[in-house]
Amino acid sequence: MSNLHPDLLQRLHAAVGDAGLVSDSEAKAPYETDWLKKWTGRSSIVVRPADTAQTAAVMRICHETHTPVVTQGGNTGMSGGATPDSSGAQVVLSTVRMNAIRAVDPLNNTLTCEAGVLLANIQAAAQAAERFFPLSLGAEGSCTIGGNLATNAGGIAVLRYGNTRELALGLEVVLPDGRVWNGLRALRKDNTGYDLRDLFIGSEGTLGVITAAVLKLHPRPVARATAWVGARDIDALVGLLAQLRATCGERLVAFEMMSAESLALILAHVSDVRAPLAGEHAFHALIELADTQDDGLAALLEGGLGDALEQDVVQDVAVSVSGAQTQAFWKIREGISQAQMRAGKAVKHDIALPISAIAAFAHEAEAALRVAQPDVRIINFGHLGDGNLHYNVLLPLDTTPEVLAATTAQFNRIVHDIVAAANGSISAEHGVGQLRRDELRHYKSEVEFDLMMRIKQSLDPNQIMNPGKLI
Amino acid sequence: MSNLHPDLLQRLHAAVGDAGLVSDSEAKAPYETDWLKKWTGRSSIVVRPADTAQTAAVMRICHETHTPVVTQGGNTGMSGGATPDSSGAQVVLSTVRMNAIRAVDPLNNTLTCEAGVLLANIQAAAQAAERFFPLSLGAEGSCTIGGNLATNAGGIAVLRYGNTRELALGLEVVLPDGRVWNGLRALRKDNTGYDLRDLFIGSEGTLGVITAAVLKLHPRPVARATAWVGARDIDALVGLLAQLRATCGERLVAFEMMSAESLALILAHVSDVRAPLAGEHAFHALIELADTQDDGLAALLEGGLGDALEQDVVQDVAVSVSGAQTQAFWKIREGISQAQMRAGKAVKHDIALPISAIAAFAHEAEAALRVAQPDVRIINFGHLGDGNLHYNVLLPLDTTPEVLAATTAQFNRIVHDIVAAANGSISAEHGVGQLRRDELRHYKSEVEFDLMMRIKQSLDPNQIMNPGKLI
Repeated sequence: MSNLHPDLLQRLHAAVGDAGLVSDSEAKAPYETDWLKKWTGRSSIVVRPADTAQTAAVMRICHETHTPVVTQGGNTGMSGGATPDSSGAQVVLSTVRMNAIRAVDPLNNTLTCEAGVLLANIQAAAQAAERFFPLSLGAEGSCTIGGNLATNAGGIAVLRYGNTRELALGLEVVLPDGRVWNGLRALRKDNTGYDLRDLFIGSEGTLGVITAAVLKLHPRPVARATAWVGARDIDALVGLLAQLRATCGERLVAFEMMSAESLALILAHVSDVRAPLAGEHAFHALIELADTQDDGLAALLEGGLGDALEQDVVQDVAVSVSGAQTQAFWKIREGISQAQMRAGKAVKHDIALPISAIAAFAHEAEAALRVAQPDVRIINFGHLGDGNLHYNVLLPLDTTPEVLAATTAQFNRIVHDIVAAANGSISAEHGVGQLRRDELRHYKSEVEFDLMMRIKQSLDPNQIMNPGKLI
Repeated sequence: MSNLHPDLLQRLHAAVGDAGLVSDSEAKAPYETDWLKKWTGRSSIVVRPADTAQTAAVMRICHETHTPVVTQGGNTGMSGGATPDSSGAQVVLSTVRMNAIRAVDPLNNTLTCEAGVLLANIQAAAQAAERFFPLSLGAEGSCTIGGNLATNAGGIAVLRYGNTRELALGLEVVLPDGRVWNGLRALRKDNTGYDLRDLFIGSEGTLGVITAAVLKLHPRPVARATAWVGARDIDALVGLLAQLRATCGERLVAFEMMSAESLALILAHVSDVRAPLAGEHAFHALIELADTQDDGLAALLEGGLGDALEQDVVQDVAVSVSGAQTQAFWKIREGISQAQMRAGKAVKHDIALPISAIAAFAHEAEAALRVAQPDVRIINFGHLGDGNLHYNVLLPLDTTPEVLAATTAQFNRIVHDIVAAANGSISAEHGVGQLRRDELRHYKSEVEFDLMMRIKQSLDPNQIMNPGKLI
């Protein structure tokens, strides 16, 4: 049953109808726990508006009654940003019924869609129009573009195409008071005032409800070339990245890094994967080029990696010779989450650094963690091309929640202190949500926090948008 | 002499010293008129802080005394955004003494510099580090990066590299109250709160003073291929653009369009240019590819344009066979401003549209203008690849200022109404400043304007930042 005041319930019912309300406890449950089962809360009710007008009606009601609202897309977030708190007072506003692709414009290279469209469906619609929508991440089959926008999602194509922010041209947003901002512009150039679009992108539901977007499409790559390399240290991989950027330019679409420990973990815990190289290497990288032209792409990669071998930058190289081998390489990279889950409890970090500072960070962080715990198991992997590491520490499977929480607090402080000193980010691509909110407060400068608070106050004066998250 | 209260003058003097104050009327004059001589105002004084700390001290003083401040870089703006008003009450804050390149990081592909650095000097510093800073526009020898950021400048490389916004990773900003926001992060991924960076970029000095920035560098192209094409109509050029994007991908760096009338004007009024094609064509395009690899680039362009010729998409093609010919093609394109100035008085537009809507716009706008003035001379040219047209109308050289003003108001309304109906932008790359402020107010939705006002109010409560501009 809903915890809402009967009047409020009646008004919401009038706004969205039977199909738009979920008030039964059991039916509400999936909206009250994130997919990692890390955060669980209680909602007063779940509303599922069918369109922008219904969303606006819901927000007008919540504004007038000072009712807090948690917007939720595919519920695949990593930071608890879309899960209600335990008060039972928050309304969950689910965007999943707003799932129309409104238009595809191949000449303008844009796609206009509603917030609840699954990322995979956008990729498919782009493909059907002989275009390419590059955003790609593990949850693409179940995450929504609204969630991607609200969290400025990263993923595996950022090196070439940027984060979700760089893939959006326009937005439609229902404001906290129920007014609709129509910023659905499909323009490459528009200097007519403040950049509201990028303010809402990445604001994690704390400033408004994104209901639709205009997305940029790109030319469809028709060729790709993939390789796996082994190197002695991260420094060497950073050097290789610079060399390949210089020679391959925008063809370089992925430069994924993992330590020997990360690879060993995957090989031990994921089925149907095998070591991509014969020998032992301290660090590995999965590298991919893509192009709208096939001519010479493989030769370009082979040439660049051949030079790196000759110069002793890398110790071994395997260039994929088949689609099956390419898939096998990616399966290793994609197996890391599963391997970690099977092998133990992870203290996770999602950090970004200037690429030139990555090697020094890794040395310093390892030393500092070893002081705290000499036998620490560091699982260092990530998107080296973006300066984004998931620098995790693995604890035994039988670690109690209390020990996990205490160790997480301790190791977060050690790692984030080093990141902050190098002017890095403590939340590169997974967002802040509930997970990093206290850390953010700890590391954000007073000036920056004040600016954020002023903006929050000016756009959401009643403080009803996703309270307890981000800010 | 300065119009400032003696106390205020003394405080500013204490903040920036002799070298930082310009109070003599004659010496102030260059800061009080824009380079087009279109706007002239009067300043109470010109302050030229040497660094961020001095800028902060100046802003603290202006904040406490409610003194309005107009920030100025190279004074090359197109919209009067950096010129004081006629009150004599505004302080001009010139950034030109803050001209250090603080760091170049080739491994991270970033450059950190102060706001007063000339764009050309940034290009050169990137080049010296074997990297490429793509922002390029007519004023690059005299504009500052601070001004480029404040106006989110466009230019001739937007098709591939984006506007200035897409080229910046971090900012340092002195806030209206003199506090310093250090957002000088050199990261590709950072999801730790609201996107303040993009709020300041493009805000035309109305929210704070940008004092430094971290810029993205790109791989240096080593090869380029350039061609001139003639076509029957814009629709054909839009089709060609789509074809070339599909086959050439990110290699396509420029797709500049001009009408036959525009070309004729240039040929008549600019010395040392000649017609690039033998026959007559209603529309022309200058097309350029660039790449980090030389192999096959010219062949790719020739192949693509050969296909377009065969399919009757274009009527004639000249692929450049030498550096001199490439320069000659660009000289035509770059001659358009001079040609317009010599040939008459221009009613200017700086509009953006979805590329798929460009052809319909051109037909509709021409018809509407011909109703208003049957013999209207339309000079239609621009960055077709960005959907950005400088759709100008040329009036006789002896047009009186009164007639020019009246005709501008009339034609702006005709053209901008059509743009607004197509969900386009009335200020694509030149900013709003004084020039388009009333137009902006006319076309911006009430909701969007209210959001902008709320943000302005929250960050600049004393309303001292560039009053009379943009908002």
